[in-house]
Amino acid sequence: MAFHFHPLVASRVHFSPLPFAAATGAPSPSSSVAIAAHYHHHGRRRFSAIVATATTTEFNFKAYMEERAVAVNRALDAAIPAGGLPAALHDAMRYALLAGGKRVRPALCLAACAVVGGPESWAMPAAAAVEMVHTMSLVHDDLPCMDDDDLRRGKPTCHVVYGEPIAVLAGDALLSLSFHHMASVGSYPPAVDPEKHPARVVRAIGELARCIGSEGLVAGQVVDLEMTGTSQTVPLELLEYIHLHKTAALLEASVVIGAIIGGGTDEQIEALRKYARSIGLLFQVVDDILDVTKSSEELGKTAGKDLASDKTTYPKLLGLAKSREFAEKLVSDATEQLACFDEEKAAPLLHLANYIAHRQN
Amino acid sequence: MAFHFHPLVASRVHFSPLPFAAATGAPSPSSSVAIAAHYHHHGRRRFSAIVATATTTEFNFKAYMEERAVAVNRALDAAIPAGGLPAALHDAMRYALLAGGKRVRPALCLAACAVVGGPESWAMPAAAAVEMVHTMSLVHDDLPCMDDDDLRRGKPTCHVVYGEPIAVLAGDALLSLSFHHMASVGSYPPAVDPEKHPARVVRAIGELARCIGSEGLVAGQVVDLEMTGTSQTVPLELLEYIHLHKTAALLEASVVIGAIIGGGTDEQIEALRKYARSIGLLFQVVDDILDVTKSSEELGKTAGKDLASDKTTYPKLLGLAKSREFAEKLVSDATEQLACFDEEKAAPLLHLANYIAHRQN
Repeated sequence: MAFHFHPLVASRVHFSPLPFAAATGAPSPSSSVAIAAHYHHHGRRRFSAIVATATTTEFNFKAYMEERAVAVNRALDAAIPAGGLPAALHDAMRYALLAGGKRVRPALCLAACAVVGGPESWAMPAAAAVEMVHTMSLVHDDLPCMDDDDLRRGKPTCHVVYGEPIAVLAGDALLSLSFHHMASVGSYPPAVDPEKHPARVVRAIGELARCIGSEGLVAGQVVDLEMTGTSQTVPLELLEYIHLHKTAALLEASVVIGAIIGGGTDEQIEALRKYARSIGLLFQVVDDILDVTKSSEELGKTAGKDLASDKTTYPKLLGLAKSREFAEKLVSDATEQLACFDEEKAAPLLHLANYIAHRQN
Repeated sequence: MAFHFHPLVASRVHFSPLPFAAATGAPSPSSSVAIAAHYHHHGRRRFSAIVATATTTEFNFKAYMEERAVAVNRALDAAIPAGGLPAALHDAMRYALLAGGKRVRPALCLAACAVVGGPESWAMPAAAAVEMVHTMSLVHDDLPCMDDDDLRRGKPTCHVVYGEPIAVLAGDALLSLSFHHMASVGSYPPAVDPEKHPARVVRAIGELARCIGSEGLVAGQVVDLEMTGTSQTVPLELLEYIHLHKTAALLEASVVIGAIIGGGTDEQIEALRKYARSIGLLFQVVDDILDVTKSSEELGKTAGKDLASDKTTYPKLLGLAKSREFAEKLVSDATEQLACFDEEKAAPLLHLANYIAHRQN
């Protein structure tokens, strides 16, 4: 079977089988070491050096993610009034936003800020903002008139608990709050309030806004809905359009916004954009794989749904083994973009890429 | 009957019957002249001078509004791709946005920019943005799960034409586009691109975002929906909460954003904020009056709907005559705030206030 990748991705995918995962069918538990060995074998010294450092200094990814999740949850909690009029709206916003997601997007945003040399705290408002946008898209996509999903992160979805009108409005409020949060002096630490770096904030807001509408999340959802209604198999090119918009766009924005707020150069920002595009598509390929290989309990959401609805997925188009192979290529391609950064500072982004590739839910 | 106004309004309402409109029950066609005479009689020289200038130099309000509407429609048309994937989304956005509204909010935004001395063209991206937000709120409020409205601006509503999922998503896309439009270099004339005045743009984006969510439009709609479900009469205080959030907040933001982009001082911005709050509430009082006095054909939307749904309105709470009296007090209170500005430059805002008070649809 021939692969036809989306132009955004194709330019960076150079196929050669990796020595793990795809062949065995199971993600390797020590995959970053395996990648390092693979690239060392192929003489890509700089990249292997990064990975080796990241692994030999025993970067504690679990602790890193937990610390970020705590800080992000604190910022999100503080951003939405508890109680006060209108109580139902605030309750619904808090219910959807504080449901305990993995906070992958905020972590990417904070890590991108740090890798370009900005103190991580500068990107906290942006990290909270991307999670608000992500939550908004989940709340609206779950609506009865859209994907009609009752379960999300192991809990009843927002409209099941609060009703459809409040779910629509809570999504709208989260979307506007994300921009308000990024534009407000009060959200930033004193050293980087928007009045001191307004040009960075404007640029970051532009990136966030672009990834939502007709060039991002919404466009992906529209085409996804159109495809769901038909019995025909979606061609790979269109499947990638959907995922690059519905999933990758916000992951890209999360990384790019962090780099902008952190004061990254244009070259750094573009390298990180490429990294983010690969992991964005990777995220969805892995999602598709998990849908056919895991139970609802393991996922915290309805499993097997893609299969039941005859939805086109990577496993359906490529088969499970080739899908895993594609995932491994995307993760190696993404991490390659980190070669131009300080090794130690790039460790979180490297581990995030591996985590997205090998997560179990 | 005693009046209990919302604190935001009460501080600026000083009741004394005006010699027109409220008594006759019909808006006066020469009301700005009447206001001038009234205030001259009461010795408020500065205000009457403004009005006199505005009327004696024969400011052509109709031409002013038509010219702005053309320019705003051009900006809106250019902001949304015609065709291209996803076509249904772009079509729905264009359908809702280019349905020929009166463009009152953009006109307020442009006029506020001009009154503080900024070239009007600087505020065009913001003017387009506030209209996008306004349209988004109409599209979502019209949804079957909300107000369930089939007719808007004399045409079938967005979900009637494009279906509910696309209507939800078109609203989301318009909301994000409004911020993208304000943050993008390409939206501005060269003299004021966001890289040259980023602090103004950040502040303006913050104002726009604040007026949408749980402090603005959405909050008003939530409380409105809650009240619609009950058989009890809504107290005046709560009715004003709804209208100050659902209607006044965006009108306030339109004016304030224009003044910020135009480079207004904090004092100027706050005077214009007070002007805008009064005309914001005025707008809704007049809407309520029109609903009981006009036909669907005259309004371009379903008339008598408030009465049919037993909705609490100003006419229901205060009676028609007192509602008109209240409207006149709000318009005079609003125009009073314009006394500190150049008379000629303030003419559009003065006439906009009178237009909002005496419009027929």
